[in-house]
Amino acid sequence: MGIVVQKFGGTSVADPECIKRVAKKVIQCKQQGNDVVVVVSAMGRSTNQMIALAKEISANPSPREMDMLLTTGEQVTISLMAMAIEDLGYKAMSFTGGQAGIMTDEFFGKGKIRSIDTQRMKRKLDEGVILVVAGFQGMTTDGEITTLGRGGSDTTAVALAAALQADVCEIYTDVDGVYTTDPRVVPEARKLDFISYDEMLEMASLGAAVLQPRSVEYAKQYDVKIHVRSSFHDQEGTIVREVSKMEKNVIVNGIAFDTRVAKITINGVPDIPGVAMAIFKRLAKENINVDMIVQSNHKGELNDISFTVSTSESKMALQVMEELNVELKAQGIAFDDTVSKVSIVGAGMQSNPGVAAKMFEALAEADVNIQMISTSEIKVSCIIARDEVQTAVKALHQKFELERK
Amino acid sequence: MGIVVQKFGGTSVADPECIKRVAKKVIQCKQQGNDVVVVVSAMGRSTNQMIALAKEISANPSPREMDMLLTTGEQVTISLMAMAIEDLGYKAMSFTGGQAGIMTDEFFGKGKIRSIDTQRMKRKLDEGVILVVAGFQGMTTDGEITTLGRGGSDTTAVALAAALQADVCEIYTDVDGVYTTDPRVVPEARKLDFISYDEMLEMASLGAAVLQPRSVEYAKQYDVKIHVRSSFHDQEGTIVREVSKMEKNVIVNGIAFDTRVAKITINGVPDIPGVAMAIFKRLAKENINVDMIVQSNHKGELNDISFTVSTSESKMALQVMEELNVELKAQGIAFDDTVSKVSIVGAGMQSNPGVAAKMFEALAEADVNIQMISTSEIKVSCIIARDEVQTAVKALHQKFELERK
Repeated sequence: MGIVVQKFGGTSVADPECIKRVAKKVIQCKQQGNDVVVVVSAMGRSTNQMIALAKEISANPSPREMDMLLTTGEQVTISLMAMAIEDLGYKAMSFTGGQAGIMTDEFFGKGKIRSIDTQRMKRKLDEGVILVVAGFQGMTTDGEITTLGRGGSDTTAVALAAALQADVCEIYTDVDGVYTTDPRVVPEARKLDFISYDEMLEMASLGAAVLQPRSVEYAKQYDVKIHVRSSFHDQEGTIVREVSKMEKNVIVNGIAFDTRVAKITINGVPDIPGVAMAIFKRLAKENINVDMIVQSNHKGELNDISFTVSTSESKMALQVMEELNVELKAQGIAFDDTVSKVSIVGAGMQSNPGVAAKMFEALAEADVNIQMISTSEIKVSCIIARDEVQTAVKALHQKFELERK
Repeated sequence: MGIVVQKFGGTSVADPECIKRVAKKVIQCKQQGNDVVVVVSAMGRSTNQMIALAKEISANPSPREMDMLLTTGEQVTISLMAMAIEDLGYKAMSFTGGQAGIMTDEFFGKGKIRSIDTQRMKRKLDEGVILVVAGFQGMTTDGEITTLGRGGSDTTAVALAAALQADVCEIYTDVDGVYTTDPRVVPEARKLDFISYDEMLEMASLGAAVLQPRSVEYAKQYDVKIHVRSSFHDQEGTIVREVSKMEKNVIVNGIAFDTRVAKITINGVPDIPGVAMAIFKRLAKENINVDMIVQSNHKGELNDISFTVSTSESKMALQVMEELNVELKAQGIAFDDTVSKVSIVGAGMQSNPGVAAKMFEALAEADVNIQMISTSEIKVSCIIARDEVQTAVKALHQKFELERK
């Protein structure tokens, strides 16, 4: 058949028994006539254990040495996985990122893949060897070992699938696929057979973190078909791929939500050019990720600017804003870290007016107050009180009839 | 000053506290004006833990994958050590074997160093960087990761010292240096200031395993001065180096002993050419290391052949010999795994007749029976009953007045 790239995360390879189980799954794919490339993460919590070890040595270890340390985690898994496959009588060979030809730039801790030299991998695949590649890592042209930063092993898998022109990139996970919303909140939530890259991106970055956003972007760019599926059984999961115009008749495909949101407002800043820039440049300098931004004008000369950040960065953001409040001679900071974001996501939204209104209607019917609104081409997000998230998600799921196919 | 290579074993880097302590020692050497290259082993028992992990996966893992697995141990240590040095305000950089330019042949699990490309290391030393190199590992020209097998990190240190033309290769250990014999057996045992490569080889392979024999051979070949010293204090240890003819007046430098010895005798084999070859070729085929061999003739036509092996291989050797007994129509096998070897070692021995006689005299005076004798240019070894080892070593130490400088 063709080439299949399979990616297994840390929990799927947490101990020798898990590794043996994955090895069987890999061989099953090989037996079906495919050339198989397996991408694995570090075992279980080993990466976290290594980070803790580094912290015992130094409060601020250099990124180069952190990469040198952390890449050993995946190297352990690839060797054990190759052994497990060989033990079952199949040819296997482990590859570090560098050995797999994954060349990155020089940014330790957040390397970006520059190119992949597939020569050696292709030769080995032709010899019938199952390749086991370390996720999350690459090498510079100087032979320096780098990690890919966020998205790690998912990105490795998608990049390899792109470079090898694989038929599919299978991402094995502990859920059955991508759901219309979190089944723990809405029991009627339905597993999607298909989802577009853009929808997946919105779903992923909104908290339904099945796939790392960066890997989805990569897949979209190189047109790699991703199959998100369970590592516990053989049933089909969700296929992430480009949708044709024809298929865009599904207006809303899913309800995403994120409860780790804090809202910050700076009141009464001057309505002159450069103020917003001053605020968000300062936040960026502190490496704070700002999500939604809303600006409203009052009294014609002063603005209120509200934005949301992750609760993990909210303390830091608040501190920066208190400073800015003084510098900009504003009228005070409002802070609320008990909010959440609820979003409807759907590629068909852009050609269907009235979708946002329908969302607001559903929330109003459920007596949920909307604090902020933000829209993009394929999603509408609302900030609401955190204790109303469940009510809101249920109401939206029902309103858009997502339990029905 | 010059270049100093320092090697620290697994127990010296067993945990973060140990690593920080070693970092200080390294920096001290740097502060004295030296360019410093540090070679480290895997932390504590981590290599054994990884071997156990592999065994859970496969009873017979491939050597390539074992090397892929085990080399992560040293990679963890080099990154942590570099972090610890940087944390104290000095420039440091970790190097895997491959990054350090250590090129080996393709024999996984027992790679031999072919060459070392020192360009990058020299450039970094010129920049004032302390280099931290992973012991025990190298890389093939294909980019395959190999381990050096026995001698591991000591060999890496000596090879780097040779390639970089270092002033000295310091091997840090948990003892103060090389002693005339084991101080636990003879309290009067004296630390030697100097010892020749050949003497060290005899001492090392006879059980006083401070240095791996292979690294000593390497040091002799490339004339690398080794300084065996304690990692717990700053006192001088023992220098291993070539001795001039002038210095060879010390007749006996040390008493070595090995209690893990078994003796096997095959009685009454035909006195014809090829018999010894048949026996020892067969043992070699089973990878059994034979140490002393003695052949004696009786009745003019039949020979008795005795040899010693390590107790760890004695069961296997016995089995092979039982088979040979039948094949060669010999008159039976005698087996004794309660013996030990005691040796006197000294480079001056070759030009001083009567040394062996003095040894036998000492043993006779102590009422110790000698079962086998073997001599080389710089040592005389005797096989005796294991429960007489202590008596024998004490008697010899006294006879040769080793407590006196």
